[in-house]
Amino acid sequence: MVWHPVSVTREQRESLNGHGAVVVWLTGLSGAGKSTLAHAVEKELHRQGKRTIVLDGDNVRHGLCSNLGFSPEDRTENLRRIAEVARLLVEAGVITLAAFISPMREHRAMIRSIIGPENFIEVYVQCPLEICESRDVKGVYQRARAGEIKDFTGISAPYEAPEVPDLVVATESMKLEECVEQLLGLINRPG
Amino acid sequence: MVWHPVSVTREQRESLNGHGAVVVWLTGLSGAGKSTLAHAVEKELHRQGKRTIVLDGDNVRHGLCSNLGFSPEDRTENLRRIAEVARLLVEAGVITLAAFISPMREHRAMIRSIIGPENFIEVYVQCPLEICESRDVKGVYQRARAGEIKDFTGISAPYEAPEVPDLVVATESMKLEECVEQLLGLINRPG
Repeated sequence: MVWHPVSVTREQRESLNGHGAVVVWLTGLSGAGKSTLAHAVEKELHRQGKRTIVLDGDNVRHGLCSNLGFSPEDRTENLRRIAEVARLLVEAGVITLAAFISPMREHRAMIRSIIGPENFIEVYVQCPLEICESRDVKGVYQRARAGEIKDFTGISAPYEAPEVPDLVVATESMKLEECVEQLLGLINRPG
Repeated sequence: MVWHPVSVTREQRESLNGHGAVVVWLTGLSGAGKSTLAHAVEKELHRQGKRTIVLDGDNVRHGLCSNLGFSPEDRTENLRRIAEVARLLVEAGVITLAAFISPMREHRAMIRSIIGPENFIEVYVQCPLEICESRDVKGVYQRARAGEIKDFTGISAPYEAPEVPDLVVATESMKLEECVEQLLGLINRPG
């Protein structure tokens, strides 16, 4: 395969945009507030004049990964594809907020490796299972308890908390604005 | 599944960028000049201050689609994934130049449908097989003739030219600058 010379580089795109690109990966239990936080951060970044996108189950599971189920193999492939897309988006100069349970350390290591550690910010969206379950916005915990959903993270499948995340936000004790503020501080940090 | 309210819309992103987003799909034989043209157009768009990316075999077959081969099923899935990624990139406000042989009308209809006809510009990069084969930059025609590559478009597999492409560029008779000019005219056309 011939590698065509790249005519426009990521650096040139970032220079045009006036800001850098990075992937912010939000991991945590279902209902912990990952998507809500991602969208709130995106809104503020946009207000600051920055290029952004949110990747989450809503725009990925119905599209790019619509032919994947929830077997261990399919979950791995789901996250692999998302990581590859995030890599392309960063190359395009877009700050990418990815909100996925991504419960296994092994998977997040794969994701980090695909995206490149220098482009990857890992955020642990921490919230006790009881709180997530009591919120149960999507009704998934009830279905998991009833055995209608197999291998559900926190109920019938493990969640492996990040060992050294770049940031932990505790959504049960912190206000959304506070979480957003902390995340923005990390994203906008020089370098 | 709960659909989180989109906090930032494509329209807002396009407004921030000062330009619209679209997918320019370049179809044609191997060696017709798709990637070269895509990169040349990107360079000029970037000079005009526009957000761009090129998708081609180089950054897709090694990443997002690295687990796909060249069977009919895998080729379909390859193009489906690329179309889904292009859809996300347009959502992110990026002008996306996709350079893929994509020889079958059926596949291009699928791609158009995923991306949305209103976001899709089909460009036929036309070049006689003899010229492509004589260029043979990647040495693939020689390998195809020797039977080392099966189902090679133009040699042992059909190429179905677009019936009503938005643009035809004939790379054997037109200068690269001319092709770029025509494509830019189409991309920058209001609406």
